[in-house]
Amino acid sequence: MITRGNPQLNRNGELIHLLSTEGLGKANINHILDTATNFVSVSDRDVKKVPLLRGKSVFNLFFENSTRTRTTFDIAATRLSADVVNLDIARSSTSKGESLLDTIDNLTAMAADVFVMRHSESGAPYLVAQHVPKHVHVINAGDGRHAHPTQALLDMYTIRHFKGDIHNLSVAIVGDVLHSRVARSNIHALTTLGCPDVRVVGPRTLVPSDMAHMGARVCHTLEEGIRDADVVIALRLQNERMSGALLPSSQEYFKHFGLTTERMKWAKSDAIVMHPGPINRGVEIDSAVADGPQAVILSQVTFGIAVRMAVMSIVAGNEG
Amino acid sequence: MITRGNPQLNRNGELIHLLSTEGLGKANINHILDTATNFVSVSDRDVKKVPLLRGKSVFNLFFENSTRTRTTFDIAATRLSADVVNLDIARSSTSKGESLLDTIDNLTAMAADVFVMRHSESGAPYLVAQHVPKHVHVINAGDGRHAHPTQALLDMYTIRHFKGDIHNLSVAIVGDVLHSRVARSNIHALTTLGCPDVRVVGPRTLVPSDMAHMGARVCHTLEEGIRDADVVIALRLQNERMSGALLPSSQEYFKHFGLTTERMKWAKSDAIVMHPGPINRGVEIDSAVADGPQAVILSQVTFGIAVRMAVMSIVAGNEG
Amino acid sequence: MITRGNPQLNRNGELIHLLSTEGLGKANINHILDTATNFVSVSDRDVKKVPLLRGKSVFNLFFENSTRTRTTFDIAATRLSADVVNLDIARSSTSKGESLLDTIDNLTAMAADVFVMRHSESGAPYLVAQHVPKHVHVINAGDGRHAHPTQALLDMYTIRHFKGDIHNLSVAIVGDVLHSRVARSNIHALTTLGCPDVRVVGPRTLVPSDMAHMGARVCHTLEEGIRDADVVIALRLQNERMSGALLPSSQEYFKHFGLTTERMKWAKSDAIVMHPGPINRGVEIDSAVADGPQAVILSQVTFGIAVRMAVMSIVAGNEG
Repeated sequence: MITRGNPQLNRNGELIHLLSTEGLGKANINHILDTATNFVSVSDRDVKKVPLLRGKSVFNLFFENSTRTRTTFDIAATRLSADVVNLDIARSSTSKGESLLDTIDNLTAMAADVFVMRHSESGAPYLVAQHVPKHVHVINAGDGRHAHPTQALLDMYTIRHFKGDIHNLSVAIVGDVLHSRVARSNIHALTTLGCPDVRVVGPRTLVPSDMAHMGARVCHTLEEGIRDADVVIALRLQNERMSGALLPSSQEYFKHFGLTTERMKWAKSDAIVMHPGPINRGVEIDSAVADGPQAVILSQVTFGIAVRMAVMSIVAGNEG
Repeated sequence: MITRGNPQLNRNGELIHLLSTEGLGKANINHILDTATNFVSVSDRDVKKVPLLRGKSVFNLFFENSTRTRTTFDIAATRLSADVVNLDIARSSTSKGESLLDTIDNLTAMAADVFVMRHSESGAPYLVAQHVPKHVHVINAGDGRHAHPTQALLDMYTIRHFKGDIHNLSVAIVGDVLHSRVARSNIHALTTLGCPDVRVVGPRTLVPSDMAHMGARVCHTLEEGIRDADVVIALRLQNERMSGALLPSSQEYFKHFGLTTERMKWAKSDAIVMHPGPINRGVEIDSAVADGPQAVILSQVTFGIAVRMAVMSIVAGNEG
Repeated sequence: MITRGNPQLNRNGELIHLLSTEGLGKANINHILDTATNFVSVSDRDVKKVPLLRGKSVFNLFFENSTRTRTTFDIAATRLSADVVNLDIARSSTSKGESLLDTIDNLTAMAADVFVMRHSESGAPYLVAQHVPKHVHVINAGDGRHAHPTQALLDMYTIRHFKGDIHNLSVAIVGDVLHSRVARSNIHALTTLGCPDVRVVGPRTLVPSDMAHMGARVCHTLEEGIRDADVVIALRLQNERMSGALLPSSQEYFKHFGLTTERMKWAKSDAIVMHPGPINRGVEIDSAVADGPQAVILSQVTFGIAVRMAVMSIVAGNEG
């Protein structure tokens, strides 16, 4: 269902939708990260609200369940003073056979301003972005195996915050890269920002050699993959991969690719460890690492609110 | 469960509940439509909010699922600055065996101001309206096969907006009139507003001849039913009617009563096509008509927000 | 899972979490009740809102369904102008195997201020309270069979409101005391406030003799239990107790312990009847009593909003 074109920028190159980190320029990404810096402090205030989106209607359209991600967008929109409608799509008209675009047309007719959308089909948010009128904005909260751009942007924010200039860093992404929209979006963001050394690390079933064309170096051992890395991003291993053809078991995965204190010594001594959450302790990551001094996993969550506030406020301020 | 009396008006004839278009006077309906006119512009504003119901508590009590209708009330109340509580009744105390009126008493004790209520039993909102204290208001969002008054009012608004004076119009309602609360509420509203020519159109199983007593002409062919009509309202065909005794199949229905560009030529050339949504493309209506220049289906949705804002603000301003 | 210590007070003895009425001093309880008095009038106002928690984030974490209780906290927080996130935990990351504390850490990283928490495991809110940073507050909305402190506090408010000084009162708690967190929390609150005569009343299977150690007199007949009582609190009989070893049937229970007008004559003539709701008419209580002049069940609901506002505003104003 992936469609062509780059509908996320207007003719002035300004962000009107956020669909993917692919197709964003370095200036677009840096503008989002710089704007997010201002919002990080909002969540520290006594009154955690700014009136930027007051009276705007944000619809959270989660065709795929994700309470965690939906909550982050709900909070981000609420702290911008928007009115948020959380739509439980499984129970809505779409289950009466209404098409996605009919649903979107109806909500647009209710004067929606922003759609935050998660969908199991890759490209669904593109379809919607190309369909809505100019004053309506679409933010992709994860589509199929394709993209999860706000996760990648909060990861970029986190890396920049802890490690500074991305031009000098080695970043390793460990796990089920093949099926991960987080990995794809991160690779695009990292290469766009000029990261000179991006590595994807995992067994051959989850990290095939032909992933090299994305601009990342493919490594099939953890030692090679994280050696001297500044940043190690562990991906979540989906339960459905753990049995069957791709992986013998989660224990077997942990034995070869789980991040432990011992193995983290292969990376730089000041390397940070990231994870999009929720973590599987003892599968991708040992508790000693997840709760240890190198982990910045909860900072990712904090920055995620600020980055989503930045994205919403930027797209809502631009016209198509 | 339908109860007697007209509890929706106070002794001054002012609207204190909205239960049905039956029993409303022309002045009541026109007051709602005139008030809605002011609210249409609110949803066009940069800040889509007015403070009319600030600090009021609106409870959306949907005993029957309808994410779409619930969302329209949620948005309408929020744009009036009310605090909205959406109650997932399937999971609430009623499933612990609490009676409807005990639930209402409890929510009233929490200082509810307005109940928006959908229920599978006809008359349930009457029961509640007759039970609550004078300062509490009930809006029927659909009860059984009985009434769906806000849908009818938004339909009246739409007709008035596009076609002007209802006194000169021919309006055809096509489909499963027998089981449709939308049809019943529309017939009452149209006759009250002085529409001289209301037709109900469909197969004998769905439009029995004795429906004539409601003040509508019964037509069993589409050609007769929509000939020279100014307004054609297609009803949604419920899936549960499509198999079994009432209808052989949805294809068969479309063959005889589906609105196509070709058949719409029977109506006036400037006729409008309406539908309460969600539409079944290729069942009640062909996509060429649903997406064509005569369709005003999405305008109905837009006006629906304004009409619901009008109803809420009017009832909340009157005492029982 | 019950943990030790009294994490609900800071070193100045101020309330920072509300986990149980056990461990609260008389001054703590009276401070909550006095504060609630001010909030009762807020729900009577035209604009039912005060700005005390504006810009604060309250998370309703209901690991056990209770639409009614969740709604009261939602309303209480909204009337304090907080931003409320209702988390449907059954569908969230915890179902992906994330631990309770990982969920809490993530929400804390989103800048949560208050967690309202219901959990099937006794002690779960203690675990969370001991884990969160100092500026985050936990309110127990019911944990296993352990405690339901806001219910007990609203019961104390109700008793004080209708009967005045608790030092002179006889209070009978009737029903499944053994499995009731409401009963446990009420006994602690009553004895702390100096109630000289607390009785627990029910069959031996539901009120074993060794409950006397909690400071209540055990009575196995209703007549003995409510004789000359000023306050009769009927507990809800859970459906799961009605069949099986503990009780032969709900009819049998009603025959011996159901509150009827006739039996209420054993109590003082001005005794009040309370119930945490939702009531089972004809099981714990006859409709003539539930709807009669002695019942204050709906006042409990009204005061419950004020008490929850009081608890939230007090804990949010104190540092750990």
